[in-house]
Order: sequence, then C-alpha cells, then structure tokens
Amino acid sequence: MTRTLYDLCGRDERLRFSPYCWRVRMALAHKGLVYNTIAWRFEDKQALAFADYDKVPVLCDGDQVITDSFKIMRYLDKAYPDAPVLGEGTAYQRALFFKYYVERSVTPSLFRSVALDLLAAIHPDDRDYFRKTREARFGARLEEVHNPEQGKQQLYQVLAPVREQLHGSPFLDGETPSGIDYLLFGSMMWTHTVSLEPLTEPDDPVSEWFTRMLDAHNGIARQAITIRDLN
Amino acid sequence: MTRTLYDLCGRDERLRFSPYCWRVRMALAHKGLVYNTIAWRFEDKQALAFADYDKVPVLCDGDQVITDSFKIMRYLDKAYPDAPVLGEGTAYQRALFFKYYVERSVTPSLFRSVALDLLAAIHPDDRDYFRKTREARFGARLEEVHNPEQGKQQLYQVLAPVREQLHGSPFLDGETPSGIDYLLFGSMMWTHTVSLEPLTEPDDPVSEWFTRMLDAHNGIARQAITIRDLN
Repeated sequence: MTRTLYDLCGRDERLRFSPYCWRVRMALAHKGLVYNTIAWRFEDKQALAFADYDKVPVLCDGDQVITDSFKIMRYLDKAYPDAPVLGEGTAYQRALFFKYYVERSVTPSLFRSVALDLLAAIHPDDRDYFRKTREARFGARLEEVHNPEQGKQQLYQVLAPVREQLHGSPFLDGETPSGIDYLLFGSMMWTHTVSLEPLTEPDDPVSEWFTRMLDAHNGIARQAITIRDLN
Repeated sequence: MTRTLYDLCGRDERLRFSPYCWRVRMALAHKGLVYNTIAWRFEDKQALAFADYDKVPVLCDGDQVITDSFKIMRYLDKAYPDAPVLGEGTAYQRALFFKYYVERSVTPSLFRSVALDLLAAIHPDDRDYFRKTREARFGARLEEVHNPEQGKQQLYQVLAPVREQLHGSPFLDGETPSGIDYLLFGSMMWTHTVSLEPLTEPDDPVSEWFTRMLDAHNGIARQAITIRDLN
C-alpha cells in the first residue's frame, strides 16, 4: 500500500518546516508507519484539488485521503489503534484542549519571534501569498509583527505550565512521547527549522525536552535539514 | 463511615472560596459522595496538625487522611473508581498539564482582578497572614497587584484555548463535566465568590460554561453563599 504525505517545503525543497506537517510526521513515526513525502508549496493549490483542500498536510493512505493535521492524527488512531497518539474519551478531549493551547497561546509568540525568518525560508514564489495572508491575520506588516525579544519573553511566560509538567516526567505525555508532545513539538520544530537562534535558553527544561524530541523515533527530526544547513 | 473536608472560610463562616477546596467539592459531588465540611482559617494551623499539613483542603475519608487538592482527586479515583475525574495514563497526564495551565496561566490574572476583594472577604484575623504571604509571592503590595482592568484583559487572552474548546462541547471534558472542568471551575468559583462584578462578559462562552457548572450536580455551587449575599 502506498502512503504519501503532502508536506510544505521552503526555498530549498528539502527544507520542511510546517508545524502541522511535523505533527503528522511524528505521529506516523510513533505508529511505525513508513511513507513518502511530496514537497508542496503554498501557491500549488492545483496539486491538492484531488483532496478538495488547499493546505497541507494531506495524507493519502492507500485509497483514503485525509486532510487537516489533527484529523489525520485521529484517523491514524482509528486505522492503526496500537500505540494511540490522541487516545479516546477524556484523553482525546484533553489533547484537543492542548491543541488549542498550542495554536492560540504558544504559536502567536513563536510567530512574533521568527516572522521574518519564516518569510526568508519559504520559496520566493510563495512570499507574496505568505505576506498577504499573515498580515491580514495579524492586522500589521510582518516587519511590525517580527519582534524576537518580545516574542521570546511571551514564549517564556506562556510555556510556564509546560515547564512545570516537565519537572515531573521527561515527556508531556509521561515516560514516552505521545500526542501532546507532537502537538507542541510541531510548532517548536517550525521555528527550530527556520531560525538561526534558539528561542529557549539551554538550561530551560523545555530545551531539554526539545532535545529528547529530536532524538525520538530514531532521530527523524534531528536529521531534518534546517536553515543553518543551507546558509 | 465519616467523610470530612477541611474547607477555608472567610469573614463569614459560610463564605467558602478556596479554589482548591472547590475542586474537591466538585469531585466529591461527581462521585456522589456525601461529606461534612469543617470551616478552617489560614491561621488555624493547629487544627491540621493531625494531618501533618498546614493548608486546606484536607480530606478525612474514614481513617484515611489525604492532603493537597490534586492528590485528593487522585485518591478519589483510586478509592472510588466509578466515574473517574482525572482518569489514568495519558488522560491523567493531560489533566496534570491542565492543572498547571490553571495555576500558572489563569490564576495570576484572576488574582490580579480580585486581590483586594479577596483581602476583604477573608477573616480579619487572617488578613495579616494573607497580605504577608501573597505580597512575598508577587513581590509587590496587594494594592499594586490589584488591577481589575488589566487582570480581565489578561484573563480574556489566557482563556482563548478554553473558549475554542467550548465551541465544540458544552464542557471541557466533553458532554458532561469532569476533572479538567473542576480544575478551572475551582479557580473561577474563587473569584465568583468574592467579587462584586463578573470577570467575563455575559456572551463569552466561558460565562455560559460557568453557568452550566453552577447548575451541575444539583447546583451545589449555585447554592454557595457569596459576598453579594452578605453585603
């Protein structure tokens, strides 16, 4: 059976930084599932017409087509129930809350820290699209949004509950990484891939967790090409 | 079997506003367990000497003595496994994250909104203790910490993921309230009990959820005496 993930790429086709695609890549690795990726760019809507969708990730699993990262994680739990990532019942419901925590509380401070790094990392043909959609979302020019000092301060504050959790266990989901680790890791991998400077201090428990996540599942994330490999 | 909860009281013995005691009261109601409460005040350390602890809640369940609200919730799940509140495995682990989210992200903005209301609500003999411990924690005078306008703005922002979650289900844990609802509700009940003004707007999904929580378990929280009943 063929399994294919449509994955956002940047100015170099090997540069893969979408937080939503990283969630899915980690969930696929968690399940021990092999897959190919197809590099995709923001402007290439036509390539996703078959999925009736205009964003990645899109997963083709045999004849199944699944869109949206969280729905893909949910699909993987249903189709491959061993080693659940989101889980069922209240475990699922609490993972859903964590998804909103990442997207509504963590992501804005990450974006503020690397807005212009992201712009530089994406393909030149995609930059107009990126600028237009993101400036509409923030109601400000990317040059105004980009404020690494403020972004890092906000990030430090917003990660306070994550830091507390990591005092008790090596991963957010316990002794081994699982669904909520992947949700946060996706977003932090996004900035790790495009930024020259780390956004957390080396002695921060969050940095130590991030290192463990890079090593997880045979180091699939550690092997990823970053902007630092291209410069 | 006798079941007794040591519960913080304010300037009127019927005024019960501890966020940690409210968590436990809701968890006991969730399990359908009956209990008596003993009104306790901050300065009454001697009354808790038997528990080798200096804070409430303390639960005496027959000959078991359990301290700390989250440990009490965990104990209740072990001793009365029907209708879990925190759950096991990843469900428990994610509830633990939510506890830290409430304590590290939500509570500071609530405290900022009602610091002087809290001071007025507690027993006059407890006020020196309260001022001293809280001012040490915040590194500022209560009069400087108290800033309802700023507190409400922070609260609105920090509750963004809660608001998203409530678009999908009536309670944070799904169709019926459970552990993470009680963790947040405890803290919001704290301010609801001592504040003259609501901290969220009436059309905010969080306010609508709070109303549902007041009605839950035969309205045990709705029946609570608040500062508005005493003035």
